[in-house]
Amino acid sequence: MRKILVIHGPNLNLLGDRESEFYGTTTLDEINQRISKLARELDCQVEFLQSNHEGVIVDAIGSSKGKVDVIIINPAAFTHTSVAIRDAVSGVKIPTIEVHLSNIYNREEFRSKSLIAPAAVGQISGFGVNSYLLALRAAVFMVKK
Amino acid sequence: MRKILVIHGPNLNLLGDRESEFYGTTTLDEINQRISKLARELDCQVEFLQSNHEGVIVDAIGSSKGKVDVIIINPAAFTHTSVAIRDAVSGVKIPTIEVHLSNIYNREEFRSKSLIAPAAVGQISGFGVNSYLLALRAAVFMVKK
Amino acid sequence: MRKILVIHGPNLNLLGDRESEFYGTTTLDEINQRISKLARELDCQVEFLQSNHEGVIVDAIGSSKGKVDVIIINPAAFTHTSVAIRDAVSGVKIPTIEVHLSNIYNREEFRSKSLIAPAAVGQISGFGVNSYLLALRAAVFMVKK
Amino acid sequence: MRKILVIHGPNLNLLGDRESEFYGTTTLDEINQRISKLARELDCQVEFLQSNHEGVIVDAIGSSKGKVDVIIINPAAFTHTSVAIRDAVSGVKIPTIEVHLSNIYNREEFRSKSLIAPAAVGQISGFGVNSYLLALRAAVFMVKK
Amino acid sequence: MRKILVIHGPNLNLLGDRESEFYGTTTLDEINQRISKLARELDCQVEFLQSNHEGVIVDAIGSSKGKVDVIIINPAAFTHTSVAIRDAVSGVKIPTIEVHLSNIYNREEFRSKSLIAPAAVGQISGFGVNSYLLALRAAVFMVKK
Amino acid sequence: MRKILVIHGPNLNLLGDRESEFYGTTTLDEINQRISKLARELDCQVEFLQSNHEGVIVDAIGSSKGKVDVIIINPAAFTHTSVAIRDAVSGVKIPTIEVHLSNIYNREEFRSKSLIAPAAVGQISGFGVNSYLLALRAAVFMVKK
Amino acid sequence: MRKILVIHGPNLNLLGDRESEFYGTTTLDEINQRISKLARELDCQVEFLQSNHEGVIVDAIGSSKGKVDVIIINPAAFTHTSVAIRDAVSGVKIPTIEVHLSNIYNREEFRSKSLIAPAAVGQISGFGVNSYLLALRAAVFMVKK
Amino acid sequence: MRKILVIHGPNLNLLGDRESEFYGTTTLDEINQRISKLARELDCQVEFLQSNHEGVIVDAIGSSKGKVDVIIINPAAFTHTSVAIRDAVSGVKIPTIEVHLSNIYNREEFRSKSLIAPAAVGQISGFGVNSYLLALRAAVFMVKK
Amino acid sequence: MRKILVIHGPNLNLLGDRESEFYGTTTLDEINQRISKLARELDCQVEFLQSNHEGVIVDAIGSSKGKVDVIIINPAAFTHTSVAIRDAVSGVKIPTIEVHLSNIYNREEFRSKSLIAPAAVGQISGFGVNSYLLALRAAVFMVKK
Amino acid sequence: MRKILVIHGPNLNLLGDRESEFYGTTTLDEINQRISKLARELDCQVEFLQSNHEGVIVDAIGSSKGKVDVIIINPAAFTHTSVAIRDAVSGVKIPTIEVHLSNIYNREEFRSKSLIAPAAVGQISGFGVNSYLLALRAAVFMVKK
Amino acid sequence: MRKILVIHGPNLNLLGDRESEFYGTTTLDEINQRISKLARELDCQVEFLQSNHEGVIVDAIGSSKGKVDVIIINPAAFTHTSVAIRDAVSGVKIPTIEVHLSNIYNREEFRSKSLIAPAAVGQISGFGVNSYLLALRAAVFMVKK
Amino acid sequence: MRKILVIHGPNLNLLGDRESEFYGTTTLDEINQRISKLARELDCQVEFLQSNHEGVIVDAIGSSKGKVDVIIINPAAFTHTSVAIRDAVSGVKIPTIEVHLSNIYNREEFRSKSLIAPAAVGQISGFGVNSYLLALRAAVFMVKK
Repeated sequence: MRKILVIHGPNLNLLGDRESEFYGTTTLDEINQRISKLARELDCQVEFLQSNHEGVIVDAIGSSKGKVDVIIINPAAFTHTSVAIRDAVSGVKIPTIEVHLSNIYNREEFRSKSLIAPAAVGQISGFGVNSYLLALRAAVFMVKK
Repeated sequence: MRKILVIHGPNLNLLGDRESEFYGTTTLDEINQRISKLARELDCQVEFLQSNHEGVIVDAIGSSKGKVDVIIINPAAFTHTSVAIRDAVSGVKIPTIEVHLSNIYNREEFRSKSLIAPAAVGQISGFGVNSYLLALRAAVFMVKK
Repeated sequence: MRKILVIHGPNLNLLGDRESEFYGTTTLDEINQRISKLARELDCQVEFLQSNHEGVIVDAIGSSKGKVDVIIINPAAFTHTSVAIRDAVSGVKIPTIEVHLSNIYNREEFRSKSLIAPAAVGQISGFGVNSYLLALRAAVFMVKK
Repeated sequence: MRKILVIHGPNLNLLGDRESEFYGTTTLDEINQRISKLARELDCQVEFLQSNHEGVIVDAIGSSKGKVDVIIINPAAFTHTSVAIRDAVSGVKIPTIEVHLSNIYNREEFRSKSLIAPAAVGQISGFGVNSYLLALRAAVFMVKK
Repeated sequence: MRKILVIHGPNLNLLGDRESEFYGTTTLDEINQRISKLARELDCQVEFLQSNHEGVIVDAIGSSKGKVDVIIINPAAFTHTSVAIRDAVSGVKIPTIEVHLSNIYNREEFRSKSLIAPAAVGQISGFGVNSYLLALRAAVFMVKK
Repeated sequence: MRKILVIHGPNLNLLGDRESEFYGTTTLDEINQRISKLARELDCQVEFLQSNHEGVIVDAIGSSKGKVDVIIINPAAFTHTSVAIRDAVSGVKIPTIEVHLSNIYNREEFRSKSLIAPAAVGQISGFGVNSYLLALRAAVFMVKK
Repeated sequence: MRKILVIHGPNLNLLGDRESEFYGTTTLDEINQRISKLARELDCQVEFLQSNHEGVIVDAIGSSKGKVDVIIINPAAFTHTSVAIRDAVSGVKIPTIEVHLSNIYNREEFRSKSLIAPAAVGQISGFGVNSYLLALRAAVFMVKK
Repeated sequence: MRKILVIHGPNLNLLGDRESEFYGTTTLDEINQRISKLARELDCQVEFLQSNHEGVIVDAIGSSKGKVDVIIINPAAFTHTSVAIRDAVSGVKIPTIEVHLSNIYNREEFRSKSLIAPAAVGQISGFGVNSYLLALRAAVFMVKK
Repeated sequence: MRKILVIHGPNLNLLGDRESEFYGTTTLDEINQRISKLARELDCQVEFLQSNHEGVIVDAIGSSKGKVDVIIINPAAFTHTSVAIRDAVSGVKIPTIEVHLSNIYNREEFRSKSLIAPAAVGQISGFGVNSYLLALRAAVFMVKK
Repeated sequence: MRKILVIHGPNLNLLGDRESEFYGTTTLDEINQRISKLARELDCQVEFLQSNHEGVIVDAIGSSKGKVDVIIINPAAFTHTSVAIRDAVSGVKIPTIEVHLSNIYNREEFRSKSLIAPAAVGQISGFGVNSYLLALRAAVFMVKK
Repeated sequence: MRKILVIHGPNLNLLGDRESEFYGTTTLDEINQRISKLARELDCQVEFLQSNHEGVIVDAIGSSKGKVDVIIINPAAFTHTSVAIRDAVSGVKIPTIEVHLSNIYNREEFRSKSLIAPAAVGQISGFGVNSYLLALRAAVFMVKK
Repeated sequence: MRKILVIHGPNLNLLGDRESEFYGTTTLDEINQRISKLARELDCQVEFLQSNHEGVIVDAIGSSKGKVDVIIINPAAFTHTSVAIRDAVSGVKIPTIEVHLSNIYNREEFRSKSLIAPAAVGQISGFGVNSYLLALRAAVFMVKK
């Protein structure tokens, strides 16, 4: 059975409240439930992590080696500042999908540059909660291969 | 029934031959068949256009107003050079999904900058043929709403 | 009798619909009628071309040598991407006036840079349909000289 | 009766002498006479100001609130250096037309960047004295509306 | 009674020792005492947090929603590197004042760029310990409104 | 008794009218009255200068040597363009506080760069009229020392 | 017998007229005749294509796979703007030689940057019509190998 | 007896696995043993810290004041993103040596820029595990002085 | 008899006081006396102007046409910000020598860029008061020719 | 009889050994023999110079005035760093052809910028040894004229 | 017995005199003696070269192929300007260690960019004379392998 | 008696021939004679060096320590490329005057940046041969002090 680790980056715990013009009104719990539901349909096992600490995320990626088939990560603010997460992704060699709720390409200029993307397999951005669900399907495609 | 226009940009007619380290060995026909198959499952109607001519693509987008629910576009080389396609997308106000076969963020620097992205709803890159299939699912999500 | 070629660049066929906060609700046909009306008053003969194809515009400029006194061009998206139109303008040596409906200097940064301007005689931007009418008067001034 | 303030920026008092390859041999007085003549035809009242002092121009714009319908300004060298004039134009909210005698886009690189343009309604450049006359017509179009 | 959270960023625990040419010889405890004293005079309740961990600061901002009226933050080194703190500030929508002991505009070039500032209400820099005291008064002004 | 010179830069005479989304509806006279009131409380003597002329401001700074204890300046548009005011501040060696009504860090990119700041003691921005009042308190702190 | 496709980019149909200080007075027909003559001497078969349409050139390159041994291309204005031609060249894997009549390195700055060059085998620029003849010899060298 | 703190930055716990083309197959434990062995020879006392948390490293540097003679740090990904570590190094004024296993100057462009280096005494990069051993010798040279 | 206009830019009235590490302790009066003395020896007539107002300097240059043989200008802060002075110099076509007391090339980066220099005949910087005296000699050389 | 000076820049003495993926296995002697052979066929006289010393190359160019009809130079590393060679080429006004063995446009970014090219007649790059032979033919074309 | 070539770049002959705040008071002879002493201990044979001539250094590297096991080079000013030395290092494929006396990362910005580093095995900077001694030890490590 | 070393950089041996629009028709010998003549009047002893070799110039500066009072250098092309000459000037601490025949600020952009200037006392450019004569007078001023 495929194992997938879903990582939510900083401030995503605030979802539902925070800047709803970009992120909608769904809470993180509701997102996780929708992901879990689809995971069951697709016969995957998902684990979730939300952290505002870059180090916690790096630890989690590092220790998932051999235990996880695909990582789905919404790096949020760390998208633009964390070389450590990028190096963790490159280091463990687990295929990783970068996900964004909003279209990061029509906001502030600095948000259109992802430090994580070159280490990821692919990127899905702009579909709100569905970005995660599409990533889950992409993960299934990848592990099948 | 949802209508979806799938646009393949320049040189994608060469797929299967061209730079297989980036694009794999599947031909464009095979891609279109896989998209059609999924479209039937998802109860969508798809039309296809491949062109090496920016103007043909701009014409097609402009004239799809009122006839198409979602556009899925792999702008290929035009991703980085065509303001006209971006303006066409903004102009017709049909929700548009940008798709890339390869991860455009770990190739030449200039390929990481998309002129189309700020006008699109979202972007899916890096999953090979599956990028299109995921986009089709994303299109279905969007039209449902 | 002075002959003037009026060229409308990509997506201007969508006028009236497209992004009315920038371009207003007048259609391209209505614009052409207003230009024709003024042309009759000013004793000029005008021809119109709208194309979403850079090549068609380059062809038209190239073949207007010796047949046209002034070119009025709204290059739209090609303003920022077409060296070929710039070279065509320089090549035929027909005085050319660059026109924009909107003020291209208070929109996205990239729109404030025109590749065509250095090859043109002058530029008129920001007056909506009147930009064309002013250009027609400017053309008359120039040919008189 | 429409009231229009025409502002000539620094060194335009030297016109006729100064760099005739860019600016021609007409003096500022002759320009003002031609503007006045057209103003009478178009039933406008024009006032003129020439100053080499940024502060004088900012004062004039600030105090024209409620007394002037349109400002026509050739900011000359201040085009590229004066945020204060830009802020004055934004501050009084009088529609303002930026005018240049020469084509500022085929001279030194720094001359192609206008600080004033984003605050103006539109820009007319490259038609010599006619730039002013076209601006006067543009002003009439705008006040009519 | 107004509640104010005062956050001290990384290395501010070293104050008194560290680079006294920039930061003076007052310790963080002494600073907090001076803030507390003024807070009592101004009838505010203050809480303090010092952390070298970006995640701890993001957590604190995120969880202060509904409990704190104003945040005063000296982001120190995170000023220039933390998009996560910026997003936390934007996310909780609590008015936030950015504070710096030294004038960040006459040190190394990179220190003159704040990632936090666009999300803050305002910024006070260069007055040593008094920067905090002024911020406290500013906080009182803001909550009054 | 402490003497403080308050300088208001270009277009601040328009306050109350100008771009109220940034600057509010208080007039300059009202601002000066609020400053004067606080100055009496704090036992300071204040003088005011508003000018749209960079040269007038440079003259004033230059001639205040030995007559003024602190300068409070809102350089407005000159913030971004005047090396002369910066040099005047450096030249007279009177401690100077830079003040802005709005948060200059979340507007146009060019407004986030101050030429004056490296020569000032500190900067206070974003608190509307209160920016001046905080600066007055900061001035008192500084002269006490 | 070696087959060589010679592609002339936009505006080269104007040769003889256009900017003779850069391009001389030879017409495109005369150039093609000189190329044909040398081709006969070198025992090659040449085909010619001139187009102002990027798409036509991309089509031609794409469909020459397996039919052509070497491509000689003077991309003219497309040198600086066409990623599509570059991708076509990379895609078909036919050795391609980039040719320029003038020395593109002592004209406007933007002309010194070729998007095509990284995909070409080599580049010959600055020798007028002889650039083509040298390219033909280079082609012969390459196919011999 | 000289005391030396050796800090290993993020993802170095993965050594042996991670990107062996850059970092070799030695594990972090083996590295620490080799450092300890040389330390004994050179009559030094070494302590080790590995962390993926920037804050933990900043804490450690801050609290080593007065307890450690030299810091040897391989900041790994934090090399390029952490102003906080740089400020910690500057703040405690303990001589610090920056170490890299790989040659950071022939990898991605962004890896050639170290934020830490200006605060360090010196830098040693490119010698694999030996980078640490050389740093230990350099530390001994420095403390002797 | 040769007539020379010596212009001192903003803040040079403060000389003797201002930043003596760059400008020494000589006052402007003493400088003018030394220039006058050398002028008498070289049989020149000199006039002096010091102003903190860009407009006053532009006026002076504009009105010196036909009355002055050479202009010697120390533009001080205006060196880096005034296109108007540059245009005045180009406009009157009087040979102009740019002078600086200090070496503008080893101070802040922005001071090494002169907007005036491209319009001047030559530049002399770094010799303190002697920069003016050398310029006077240079002026004599030029008028002799 | 035409005289041609062939200059080989730094490290070309190592040819055959050095980075054969870029430069092949032919030695410099073999290259010179192939050039000499073609020179005899084309009735030219060639002289060769290889030097790792920029000064020696500048000397050679300077002293070839009046003795040489065309210079063929492969500036190698000096391509990107030597203004002196560029100035020598401009100074002697002998037509000069720049040659590169490899395609300098698909290697490190800095190699795509030639300081010499603007002073040369033309450039030939990417054809290995044949670059020289083509240059020799180009030289013959030029001298014929 | 291992053979090591130690190259000292331009101006290092002035050591002891030159800018002692960066380079200390040891002369080059004393440095060479300390290197020789350590070389004897480590059983290496060292040769020394100091030159202010880039060409001499390039010659030396080129001719050391097959005669030298490791090169230690302090390129001094050539660090930032010599592509020729970089190419020589790449060309001969002898492992090369870049050495700097001072920390090149906290001086002028341009000194933090090394053209040589990407071709070297590693870099040691900031330890004064000890930089060479550490490099010698590093050389021994490398040859052992 | 004051001793002055006059250094002429690369290609200045060609003076009289080379690009006379920038450099006039005077030969280097004539320049040296004019310098010698003035030196006798001013009671100085001058030595001359012209070299196209950066290393020769660096050697000369290094060995003039203690033997020369002032260096006058026209670095020509090395102005823009030689850190070694800059370091030599800084190293010997002999006051050095940078001289240019032409105005380096109105030619190609790259010529307006001098690497030598920050290490020189001052710079004189644009006065043809007189640049040297003025520098000689400046030298006398400096040694007098």
